[in-house]
Amino acid sequence: MSILVTGGAGYVGSHTVIALLEEKDVDIIVVDNLSNAYRGDGVKKPEPLLRIEEMTDRHIHFYDIDIRDRNGLDKIFDNHKIDCVIHFAALKAVGESVQKPLEYYQANISGTCTLLESMRAHNVYKLVYSSSCTVYGDPQRLPLDENHPTGGGITNPYGKTKYFCEEIMKDLCSSDQNWKIVSLRYFNPVGAHISGRIGEDPTGPPNNLMPYISQVAVGRLQELQVFGSDYPTVDGTGVRDYVHVVDLADGHLRAARLFHDQSFRGFHAVNLGTGQGQSVLQLVSSFERVSGRRVPYRVVGRRAGDVAANYADVTLARTLLGWKATRSLDQMCEDTWRWQEKNPRGYRD
Amino acid sequence: MSILVTGGAGYVGSHTVIALLEEKDVDIIVVDNLSNAYRGDGVKKPEPLLRIEEMTDRHIHFYDIDIRDRNGLDKIFDNHKIDCVIHFAALKAVGESVQKPLEYYQANISGTCTLLESMRAHNVYKLVYSSSCTVYGDPQRLPLDENHPTGGGITNPYGKTKYFCEEIMKDLCSSDQNWKIVSLRYFNPVGAHISGRIGEDPTGPPNNLMPYISQVAVGRLQELQVFGSDYPTVDGTGVRDYVHVVDLADGHLRAARLFHDQSFRGFHAVNLGTGQGQSVLQLVSSFERVSGRRVPYRVVGRRAGDVAANYADVTLARTLLGWKATRSLDQMCEDTWRWQEKNPRGYRD
Repeated sequence: MSILVTGGAGYVGSHTVIALLEEKDVDIIVVDNLSNAYRGDGVKKPEPLLRIEEMTDRHIHFYDIDIRDRNGLDKIFDNHKIDCVIHFAALKAVGESVQKPLEYYQANISGTCTLLESMRAHNVYKLVYSSSCTVYGDPQRLPLDENHPTGGGITNPYGKTKYFCEEIMKDLCSSDQNWKIVSLRYFNPVGAHISGRIGEDPTGPPNNLMPYISQVAVGRLQELQVFGSDYPTVDGTGVRDYVHVVDLADGHLRAARLFHDQSFRGFHAVNLGTGQGQSVLQLVSSFERVSGRRVPYRVVGRRAGDVAANYADVTLARTLLGWKATRSLDQMCEDTWRWQEKNPRGYRD
Repeated sequence: MSILVTGGAGYVGSHTVIALLEEKDVDIIVVDNLSNAYRGDGVKKPEPLLRIEEMTDRHIHFYDIDIRDRNGLDKIFDNHKIDCVIHFAALKAVGESVQKPLEYYQANISGTCTLLESMRAHNVYKLVYSSSCTVYGDPQRLPLDENHPTGGGITNPYGKTKYFCEEIMKDLCSSDQNWKIVSLRYFNPVGAHISGRIGEDPTGPPNNLMPYISQVAVGRLQELQVFGSDYPTVDGTGVRDYVHVVDLADGHLRAARLFHDQSFRGFHAVNLGTGQGQSVLQLVSSFERVSGRRVPYRVVGRRAGDVAANYADVTLARTLLGWKATRSLDQMCEDTWRWQEKNPRGYRD
């Protein structure tokens, strides 16, 4: 069995690759343009994949191409008998997407369409897609279940690309019964592999809370800015549904297993979260406890586009995928901290 | 002054090209991949452009390229000092878009993004975009004004591509103050140039009502199917806001004039319609009257995705563009019939 993983050198991608290799005798082909991943000078493979090969004693096929390169993709499908695709490759920084919308639309939408075209041309119709709870926009009710409307009130191009791609995939599945697509709507992925060798390695200042906290804890950044303390939440700070990246990776394996059922078809969106909301200050407090470090923070004004709270209804993940997040907030912080302490400069160390 | 017209060999595109040439001393550069336009064997230029050159005694620069071809576009911007772009190039058949969603998303979204990237790389920031009232989805109120929500309940990929492109352009204008984009939301374009030499020339069976009626009148098709006669409208048949294509063309000229005002910037969506709804049977009746031909029809069931009625609030077109549709329904039918009678097989004659 061969699985093509686009964006397999990235954060969730690399954790899914290691989970796939740990689990079974599967051939992994990674496509990544390394737009957001580290590769040492003169080295052919990005560092996360090298580490995974070392840890698992397995070989990963790696192609340094952009998914908008149709010929490049076609060659991969010609060279490998791909059974299914797990598609992570995308630009993902919310703030940057507001500055560079065209780049986001081209990379994420044109990229996804080109991948789908190449798949179809090679009779590969099974796809697990890396989506996001941002498709729900401004929550009309909590917890967010998969029937909550999507597309309304999305305030940034990144989120719109995820929503547009889901719509494209829905239309594609309606037009052609061959397609089987599972769109996994992640809530807030955090944590790292238990080995401390694989983790999140943002280029530049982190855009997300957990890597920011851990870089403050390790001394790379001075203090955390907390955006708003007057939300109608447990302590006034924003509430999110943090989910351990190793749990997420397992969700992808379970999604891909759905394809074994010959009668499974069409487009299915599934939330991946714990179902529990945690506030910024709860996360800080857990991180300080497990790391033994102080995380100085300063409360500043609310940030445009942020909502007070969101968290998942995870019923469908349980019933359809047989999946449930099992790792606690403390474990998320512990594993993040292990990765950060061992790799204060990420994969550059 | 040089204007690049993408899709300039198409229906609204060709009428806009002739209006531009009739009006002023402007250099016209047409880009068209001829996916939906006729070109005689061994002829370099598509027939509509040849006819326009003959009628106006003016030269049109023509490039047979696809707007997804970034290098091809770049060369055009290098070769001509383009002042602004009028962007028609798109796939536009609603039914086909349901069958071939990927093709529509690639052509319309990736194509538009590539055009915008090439424009920006050449410091061209002025764009008139060919949008559609389909962006409004299922009307929540009538008439449809530009503040009516967009994106909700759009039932086909074609309509979604128009909506997504508008969102992309809005985000682009928010990210960069240089951009000036006018998105013209057409209601139902019909009619033809008064000469009878330029008109709508669908490849295959017509997807829209007016060309269908005129092909029945001319004997190319046997009878008209009327989809539903139990709508809550004047006579039970669907009501639409038909607008003469020469009026539409004039709307593009007026939109491009907004760019003369140095302070004009950002994204502006403007309806182009008459503000009046006409039923299917009213259109048939007008057509029979002006053509002197019978148009046999048969009422069949409603068609999925059709709404009972839509028509435009045209206040903004008047106040912002100084534009108003001036041609009556009878004129729309008369001009369509002249074109059809003179060219029973469209540009192939």
